[in-house]
Amino acid sequence: MPERRYEPVSGTWVVIAADRASRPHDIRTAADSPELESCAFCAGREDETTPAVATWAPLSSSSGEPWQVRIVPNLYPAFIDPSETLPLEFAESKSSKSGQPSRGYHDVVIESPRHVRRLTDLSQEECHLVFQAYRERLRQYATDPEIKVGLIFKNCGSSAGMSREHIHSQMVGLPFVPTTLQTELDRSQAHYSKFGTCLFCDLLEQEREQGERVVEETEQLIAYCPFASRFAFEIWILPKKHLFSFEDLANDSLSELSELMQRLLEKLEKQLGEPSFNYLIHTSPFDSHRKDHYHWHIEIIPRLSQLAGLELGSGIHINSVPPEAAAALLR
Amino acid sequence: MPERRYEPVSGTWVVIAADRASRPHDIRTAADSPELESCAFCAGREDETTPAVATWAPLSSSSGEPWQVRIVPNLYPAFIDPSETLPLEFAESKSSKSGQPSRGYHDVVIESPRHVRRLTDLSQEECHLVFQAYRERLRQYATDPEIKVGLIFKNCGSSAGMSREHIHSQMVGLPFVPTTLQTELDRSQAHYSKFGTCLFCDLLEQEREQGERVVEETEQLIAYCPFASRFAFEIWILPKKHLFSFEDLANDSLSELSELMQRLLEKLEKQLGEPSFNYLIHTSPFDSHRKDHYHWHIEIIPRLSQLAGLELGSGIHINSVPPEAAAALLR
Repeated sequence: MPERRYEPVSGTWVVIAADRASRPHDIRTAADSPELESCAFCAGREDETTPAVATWAPLSSSSGEPWQVRIVPNLYPAFIDPSETLPLEFAESKSSKSGQPSRGYHDVVIESPRHVRRLTDLSQEECHLVFQAYRERLRQYATDPEIKVGLIFKNCGSSAGMSREHIHSQMVGLPFVPTTLQTELDRSQAHYSKFGTCLFCDLLEQEREQGERVVEETEQLIAYCPFASRFAFEIWILPKKHLFSFEDLANDSLSELSELMQRLLEKLEKQLGEPSFNYLIHTSPFDSHRKDHYHWHIEIIPRLSQLAGLELGSGIHINSVPPEAAAALLR
Repeated sequence: MPERRYEPVSGTWVVIAADRASRPHDIRTAADSPELESCAFCAGREDETTPAVATWAPLSSSSGEPWQVRIVPNLYPAFIDPSETLPLEFAESKSSKSGQPSRGYHDVVIESPRHVRRLTDLSQEECHLVFQAYRERLRQYATDPEIKVGLIFKNCGSSAGMSREHIHSQMVGLPFVPTTLQTELDRSQAHYSKFGTCLFCDLLEQEREQGERVVEETEQLIAYCPFASRFAFEIWILPKKHLFSFEDLANDSLSELSELMQRLLEKLEKQLGEPSFNYLIHTSPFDSHRKDHYHWHIEIIPRLSQLAGLELGSGIHINSVPPEAAAALLR
């Protein structure tokens, strides 16, 4: 059972999850056969995953597929469903200096019944449904009083930490606010206290004014390469209107977002081949007094180079592609 | 010229260094010839690097080598020597919202005249000299009033961000305290204020008491896999006696340290083949009121898996090898 431990020097949470070492990796190398004989995420193999916690029907009954999107608990979770009974070792060690059980939800969003790999392989409608699934599962997390926040992320490509190539994302629902999000909340709160404005609103306004790092604007959204992009070709997507929670988005906004996301990934593929990338959806914690100073956003992070000793030891990122140049290429 | 920019949402410093995109990569793949035709770090090619800022003579005159260790400014620096004149664009834009020149030292420590790759390829005496070189260059940084702190790091193996395989490390001398070190300083200061003790002294005492994560103790040093190891087989080395600055170490301590480092890397190689890894030397800032609550240390970080969306989006690390198991294997 995974155990959560706190590293007091860096203030980092670590999950020790020995079972995950045995999880399968099915990424094919160029030398492998292009035919995949067994993928537990494909339609027809539903009994090889954990039972689904949510399933979305095919968009048309004529597709012949049994479903279009499924969310299943991760078979090798880093977080254990809060409703599960704890093993004795944890029940007894509550007050000791040892780790604590790593509680929370850890789900896999299987984004197509077909064995495809990238969001750009989906139709617009299929991609729209994926974002609806994210929203619905976040709303489910929000009903659990133990869960403070949800995070959605995709690992696409082996350099991004992907272990299965069948298109999927992951979602976690956590009983604590993790460091990265807490830092964003603290910094945006401090900005709000000082200036009376939302940090993200101010940043996106500055990007619109300067223009040179903007990749695309839609009616409700803006996508730009941030002034201080940590990664080459990093792109952020923000709603232009202040909105702190992703899960409050209406269907029309999700449709606009999913189409923008497909276009942005197409642009990245056009410039960079099929790059490994992560995307992260950062949304406000679920607590009752919602964070008016926070602003949901998506970070798209191409993984073109390794984080090296300087990044790990100092937190300073070196980026050899100026965001102005990246945005110009992507436009 | 590299430009330093601040990312206000995460509080991260970013260096935009377009010139680094053109730096050479000479890492051989298995398919390549094992013979390397040109390496600018090898003896006899000194005119292909920037001029050395420090050189150490061969340990024996009979070696026939012109030197044993050289420190040269990075040809593709992320930080520009503070004594260099700024280009006009920066001189004029001091008060604007744009980035600032990325000032500091960025050196390469060439750790052998021979084309070898790993510290375990060096003799004890050669390895000892490498650590003396680190110390001497740190002491040089400390004499520059513009420079606040030094960081030493090694990127070994392609998964650790290495771009040249000839054995080397990098050192930076920075005019500001980077985030990761500032966090450690803040947290150890808070611990000191609360308990009147050094956080690192307390942690290493706990590790000695519990014992199960200790890999090795020498007269002056301890090496253990931390309770909340972020990475599989992560190892920290600390002096057992409270000491905040690496550059105050005497030769006998450096000798003990370099021998311990070679043994630890041998142990990692025995368990993991030739893993990619980083090591980082964290030492106190150079300012006049030295930090009595801080404790220099080395973090050895094997790079066995990719940082994925969960790590990037939440700061939570998942480690599938419990440090108790890693330490037992390494012992």
